[in-house]
Parts: sequence; C-alpha cells; structure tokens
Amino acid sequence: MATAVSSVGETCRAAKRAARTLAQVESDVKDGALKAIADALEARCEEVLEANDRDMQLGREQDIGEALLDRLRLDEGRISAIARAVRQIAALPDPVGEVIEGRRLPNGLDVRKVRVPLGVVAVVYEARPNVTIDATALCLKSGNAIVLRGSSTAMHSNAALAQIAAQAAVQAGLPDGCVSLVAGGGREELAELATQKDTVEVIIPRGGEGLKHALQAVATVPVIYAASGNCHVYVDASADLDRAEAIVINAKTHRPGVCNAAETLLVHEAIAGEFLPRMLLRLAASGVLLRGDERVRALVGETDPGSGPIDGGGAPAVRLEPAQEEDWASEYLSLTLAVAVVESTEDAIEHIGRYGSGHSEAIVTRETASARAFQRGVDAACVYVNASTRFTDGGEFGMGAEIGNSTQKLHARGPIGLRELCTFKYLVEGDGHVRA
Amino acid sequence: MATAVSSVGETCRAAKRAARTLAQVESDVKDGALKAIADALEARCEEVLEANDRDMQLGREQDIGEALLDRLRLDEGRISAIARAVRQIAALPDPVGEVIEGRRLPNGLDVRKVRVPLGVVAVVYEARPNVTIDATALCLKSGNAIVLRGSSTAMHSNAALAQIAAQAAVQAGLPDGCVSLVAGGGREELAELATQKDTVEVIIPRGGEGLKHALQAVATVPVIYAASGNCHVYVDASADLDRAEAIVINAKTHRPGVCNAAETLLVHEAIAGEFLPRMLLRLAASGVLLRGDERVRALVGETDPGSGPIDGGGAPAVRLEPAQEEDWASEYLSLTLAVAVVESTEDAIEHIGRYGSGHSEAIVTRETASARAFQRGVDAACVYVNASTRFTDGGEFGMGAEIGNSTQKLHARGPIGLRELCTFKYLVEGDGHVRA
Repeated sequence: MATAVSSVGETCRAAKRAARTLAQVESDVKDGALKAIADALEARCEEVLEANDRDMQLGREQDIGEALLDRLRLDEGRISAIARAVRQIAALPDPVGEVIEGRRLPNGLDVRKVRVPLGVVAVVYEARPNVTIDATALCLKSGNAIVLRGSSTAMHSNAALAQIAAQAAVQAGLPDGCVSLVAGGGREELAELATQKDTVEVIIPRGGEGLKHALQAVATVPVIYAASGNCHVYVDASADLDRAEAIVINAKTHRPGVCNAAETLLVHEAIAGEFLPRMLLRLAASGVLLRGDERVRALVGETDPGSGPIDGGGAPAVRLEPAQEEDWASEYLSLTLAVAVVESTEDAIEHIGRYGSGHSEAIVTRETASARAFQRGVDAACVYVNASTRFTDGGEFGMGAEIGNSTQKLHARGPIGLRELCTFKYLVEGDGHVRA
Repeated sequence: MATAVSSVGETCRAAKRAARTLAQVESDVKDGALKAIADALEARCEEVLEANDRDMQLGREQDIGEALLDRLRLDEGRISAIARAVRQIAALPDPVGEVIEGRRLPNGLDVRKVRVPLGVVAVVYEARPNVTIDATALCLKSGNAIVLRGSSTAMHSNAALAQIAAQAAVQAGLPDGCVSLVAGGGREELAELATQKDTVEVIIPRGGEGLKHALQAVATVPVIYAASGNCHVYVDASADLDRAEAIVINAKTHRPGVCNAAETLLVHEAIAGEFLPRMLLRLAASGVLLRGDERVRALVGETDPGSGPIDGGGAPAVRLEPAQEEDWASEYLSLTLAVAVVESTEDAIEHIGRYGSGHSEAIVTRETASARAFQRGVDAACVYVNASTRFTDGGEFGMGAEIGNSTQKLHARGPIGLRELCTFKYLVEGDGHVRA
C-alpha cells in the first residue's frame, strides 16, 4: 500500500491535493464510489477476515482481554453490516452545495451562503475496525479527504479495509490520496498528525479519555472532541410515573456503555416517596447498582427501616450504596446509577449545571412551566422533555449517520453528521458593484 | 472598579456566573441595556475624554507615533458614533431562540435546533478604544458575558468605557459580571486569560499578527482568528474592462489598510495588452505602488520600450517594480499592488489557492463558465463575481454588525456577527418515548 511507506506529512499533503479535486466532484460520482466501496468490501471479504485473524491472534497473544477482542472481531455478518451502512450513507442527500441562506442586499448584490467541504479530515480511533469504513464513507460523501489513524491492535484489519476503500474509490473516479491510513499507531504518529495544520482542517478523535488527553497535549490542528456523556434524567413533581419509570429504565439499561446513557437520576422531593421505591426495585431487578444521596437512603430506610435494603415482596432486594461527591461527576458507562432527591426543577438544573458534561439531559414532567424552565436553563447539546436521553444520535435525529457526538459549543454540538463535516462560503454576485 | 482588582481567573468565573443568567434574559431587557449604555456614553462623555487625554498624553510621552495616536484619540464625534453603533445593534433581531431547523421524527419526537449564547466570550484587542463598546454591545445582544483585554496604550480610555458600560448594563437589569475588563495589558494576563478553559468558551483577537502569534503560543481556549486578508481581483478574458477598472480601483484604494482590500491583481493574458496599460496608469494616478511579474513588465515595456516607465500622455508615469516571490504572499495593507498575468481562469484559481489567505476573492467576467469555475474552485470565505472584495463586512452582508472576519473554516467563516457569537442546542419533545 502506497500510504504505508509515506510519512505522515506526505500523506497529509497528498490528502490536501486530493481534497481540492474532491471538493468539486459531483454527487453521483461520490455516491458511485461509496457503492463501489461497499461492493468491494463484500467481494474481498476473505482478505479482510484474514487480516482480522492476524490481529485477533496477536490480541490473544498480548492478552488484550475478551471485551477488546470482541470489539476487534470481524465476521461475514459484521462486514455485510459495514457495507450496508456505506450504502445508506450513499443514499443520503449531498450536503455540498446546499444553500444555507441567501438574500439580495439593498445595493442589489446577491449573497448566498453555500455549504462546502472542510478539506482534509483526520479521524483518530481505537479498536473497532468498522470505524475505518464508516468514517471514510462520511468524509467522502461530504467531499472531504480522510486521513485515518487507528490503533495498533487493529493494524492489519484497518490496513486491509483502508486499502480496499482507497482502491475502490479511486477506480470509481475519486482522486488519488482521498483515503489514507497513517502507518503506525504510536504516540509519535499521533503527535505528527495533530500538528499538520497547513494541511489538516480538523481532527476528530473516537476513543476514550486517554486519547483525548494525548491529543490535548500536542494538537495544534483544531480538534472536535466527542467528549464523555454524564447524562441525567430528572423526574419532576408532576411526572407521569409510569412514563418516568420506562424512560429511566431505557436511559440507564438499554445500552449502558454508550455516551447517551443516563448516569444520574434526580427526583423531585414531592414524589420521591411514591416513585423511588418502585423505581429502585425495578432498576435493581435490571441489575443496576445504585448509589444514593442521604435523602434517597433515608427514604428507602423508611420503607424498610431495619436493614437498609428494601424488599419488594418477591422482587430482588435493593442495595443502595452511599453516593460520594465523585459519583455525581462520574460517567460510569456501566450498570451503575447515582440517585439524588432535589427540591425543585431549578435545583435539578443547578445540579446538572454543576456536574453534567453538556451531552444529553432529560426531564419527565406534565407541567409546561417545568418543561420550559428545563429546556431554557440546561446548557447541553440535547435537552429532552418526556423522552429518553438515548435518542441523541445522528441516525435517530434524521441526519443519516454520525461520526461522533460533540459536547463542545463551537462548530458542531451534538451529533456530527455530514453537514457538520462541512464549512461554507459566501458567494456574492453583482454587476460591477463597488463600495461607496 | 471592582473588576480592576480581581484576578483574571476570578473575573472569568464571575463572567460565567453572569452568563448563566444572561442566557435567559429576554430581548427587550438586553435591548434596554444597550440603549442605556449608549445614553450613558453620551451623558458621561467628559469622563471618557478625560481618561482618553491621559492615554494620549502617555502615548505622546512614549512616542507611539501619529498613526497610533490617531487610532487612540476620542472626541465627542467619535463617542457619538460609538453610541449610535450600539443603538443600531440594539435594533437588530435577537439571535437567541431562533429555530435554525426542526422536524418531527418518524417516531413522533419533535426536534428543534435552537440558537443559544456561547457563554463567556473573551475579546483581546489593540489600540482603538471603540472596540471596548462595539464588542460589548455584540456580546450582550447575543446573550454572552464579555471579558475584555485591551492594550496598555488605551488603558484609561478602556477602563472608563468598560465601567460606564458595565454600570449601565447592570442598572438596566443585566447580571453583575456581564462586562469586565482585565486589568493590565501584559503578556501574563493574556496567557492567563487564554487558558481559562473551564469558564471562557472562545477568544476573539482583534489585532495584528503579533497578537495572533502570542495567542497561538499559549491558548488552550479555542480562538477564532480574524486572520489577514491577502485578497485578489482576477480580470478574466471576457471582462467588461470599465467595470474591471472600477472594481480594481475600489478594491485597492477605497480603504487600503483593511483586510478586505485587494493586494494582487491577476489579468488574463488575452486582454492584458489592452487592459493593463490603462489600469496601471489609473492605479499610479491614485498613488498605488505597483509590483509586476515579468509578463506585466514586458507588456508595459512594449508600450514604451525605451525606459520601462510608461507615460500616458500627461498622466503620471507608471513605475513598475519587479515582483518578488514574497509579494504574492504579502498583505500590504497600504497602497501597494502586486500584478501578474495568468493564462486562464484555472491558472488564476491555482495562484489564489497557493498564495491567498482564504478571505475575499473576486473575478470580473462576462462568461458564466468562468464565473462558475471561480466560485467553485476558489476556497475562500467570500467569493465575488463582478463586485469589489470590499463588501466583505457584517454590516454590508445584512448581518447588522461584526466583531471581526474569520478566515478559518470551523464555526465562523467570514463576518462574525451576532449569530456567529452563538451556539445551538437540540430541544427534543416526546410523550414518554424510549429507544427500541
């Protein structure tokens, strides 16, 4: 593979040359290239599986653990799913050329604000090899060249996938250099990539806090951090308790390892006595480890004053550990939930303002005043009324797909889809206009 | 002034507390505060002029030069103009709460993407004290708290202006801490401000390359650089030459010291012989110093083979210095213009891609194909067809006002107006929705 022997700087310069051409490629050519990538992945499935076998074997030898091995593993079914996702991205509307807004100025100049690609997007990721293709499809569809830097654990899988994608894309008419994989998963390559500010427009990391800190220490290229999600569900005094229960269960247990899962439950004091015992029993029955503040523990103590744990008549007993200060700030990413009683919607907003990470926050309520106060007062990418935080997702939001979820406020906030992979320019047309 | 004794960190924390309240203040209260600031500026004009006198006197003692003294100088007329600008900003529509887009998802969830303030905006600026008020008005109108850091040259003027604005704003109902000025114009304060990433959302510098480099070296807070403008006018083979002449004169001479002024003229070879002699004579007559490439110089030599300088029969002689490589990359910010002959529109796009700073680029043409190629091929914030580059301006674009002009691609590109001082959040409403 040509890219494997290039330096990071050369790879990025080649990507920039490709990006200038790619910015002007028509939608049908880009969509054709995406379909060609999907076809090539299926046709060359064996090749990918062989490369993946090598990574799996090395992973076992290095004892990386079952969870990581599972994320690394590819099979025919997973490769089909990756190809299907690429075809779905091909079917989305092209963001490039969209007129965001426009007007005629009083002097007769016509101004249009038009979406255009960013240029070169670098994606830095860990473990899952499917990101190689997902990120490539999103970047090519939005007219950007992509420079990938995966982890050494998935080295062979990523190389096979990137090579197949690059070859298929170029054969389908996209410019050479539009897809490349930086060889080597070391910190040196990361630092080199993160300082290519003459060629790379943005770096999007997909990985944990370690990767984020490594980038923060070295990056001079702008980074869009898909930061952690410390999400809350607040059950208001007026909440429909059945709906609240369903939302809390969904937000916590539907997929606890992702960033839009809930980590803290806040309950208004007026309904805490009625709601919490049934809610905590149901959570415990779903295998959730609970950590409560003093009021929650006192409430539960009232239900069953003797022992601490409450027993719901046949249901499993609830164990309620005392929540420490750090629990309110934790993104557990597991079946653990912190629980607190609050005095008001304002109190809930205050708690979320102090501990939340600005990702996804939900209120369950029947009162418009509470809903409105929460929507206005909570400073987060996504604020839900009577719905689970789990909906924060480019696919769910109708953006087609996403490359990550941003908790920062500049450029992209929330799901980073095709439009967020673009910038814009102003096109201004006159007939000899000069400024007076 | 309370802010004068606070540390930079304390000032920013107070600003963040103010920002949380300010984000929810209604438009009429914000507009009332802006009008109160304008009124207070006029009522307390004497106070400002006294402070300005002190700065002017120190400036003279320190021999800062006439140009800087002129930028520093305030008088009643200038203060009235500042107040008028504030009232104009008050009259603009509030960007906060604007629904950018929205839809009902297939599952019935209603999603709205709504504009909200960023939080705390820091503005770092040099010399001109009017920025103190302009930036304050734009930030307050967009619901942001502002932390100002001016230069030591304008210390007394800035302090007087910031104090008047802060007092008027708070009296009109805005929260304490919504306007503050960092005491001290040293590099230490700059570094301290540029690393307050827990409280400050973005820094917007208004100043020269020195300030930019100083920030790049230390900032961990995101910076929106209002970078330099190396702008081009390209006169195509099919151009209406009278219009081309008017546009070139306007782009170069209307206000040569600003970032949207033209620095290089590119002329298609097919009309260079007809167009350049008259154009260069007119430019020379306007006091423009010309630097030409070999073809331009040969052309001019042909007109008057003996001496180099051409003489337009009574018009002043044209002196044409040879352009060096660095001329193509220079932002002169003065009455100097580099001139080159190109072979095609593609050639012009290539030249602009190599040397341009991505600010404002213009083509003069009568051919739709050239116009379209230029609009698509030039990667800049603003691309003009048959109009002067001088129109790149928030006011001209109907954005009301601007705090600067961004040549970066993330978040804001081109004029940074009220909307660009905002982020957004997704508001999602359901009736008990959980993710399947």
